[in-house]
Amino acid sequence: MSDTLSVGKKLVDLCREGKNMKAIETLYSPDIVSIEVSGGPDMPARMEGLPAIKGKSEWWVANHEVHKAEVDGPYPHGDKFIVVFKYDVTAKGGPMAGKRFFMEEAALYTVHDGKISHEEFFYSMG
Amino acid sequence: MSDTLSVGKKLVDLCREGKNMKAIETLYSPDIVSIEVSGGPDMPARMEGLPAIKGKSEWWVANHEVHKAEVDGPYPHGDKFIVVFKYDVTAKGGPMAGKRFFMEEAALYTVHDGKISHEEFFYSMG
Repeated sequence: MSDTLSVGKKLVDLCREGKNMKAIETLYSPDIVSIEVSGGPDMPARMEGLPAIKGKSEWWVANHEVHKAEVDGPYPHGDKFIVVFKYDVTAKGGPMAGKRFFMEEAALYTVHDGKISHEEFFYSMG
Repeated sequence: MSDTLSVGKKLVDLCREGKNMKAIETLYSPDIVSIEVSGGPDMPARMEGLPAIKGKSEWWVANHEVHKAEVDGPYPHGDKFIVVFKYDVTAKGGPMAGKRFFMEEAALYTVHDGKISHEEFFYSMG
């Protein structure tokens, strides 16, 4: 199996088990680059390095109660693969606090030397 | 609505109605570039131009009976969007003739001047 497909399958398996932080810790390069559709002063669209990306994931976990998560993929092509995430969540903080909503996004990952070196998220801003 | 999201929604709507050829005719640039995971002598992985891409779609339609199609997306980011296709089909020709199988793929599209100028497909080779 190619590195790409192998890493993609591990990521999908861990995310299906809700072990997103373990996925970051075991599958991500120390030099990971992560790109959101948009950003703000506290959380720029482009973030670099494992500590920043772990921080983003910790923020997400702390601010969302997940009722159901669905993960589709991985869909590989060369050194890249795509995964689709669908979440049924209630926001625990911020302007959406207490509101239950459905969110879905696609993520495009690049694998370099057996580790995820780049991730880019695709979603509508609602 | 951005060009990207608008074009993506039109593509998804047409594909959900099974009007994939109409999507190509109305949403694709004449200079469309289309990239599969792998290719062969008759159908290279990289194809260019509307006639070639229409030919590829015609081949697919002629060789597959579609029992069910599911289309997820579009998931936009900048000038790109991702769509996921899931097909329950029976092959009408080739080595798989008569066999019913499930296939799924993600597609990454680029929009330029309001038209799809680039498409790249992501899937496992089984």
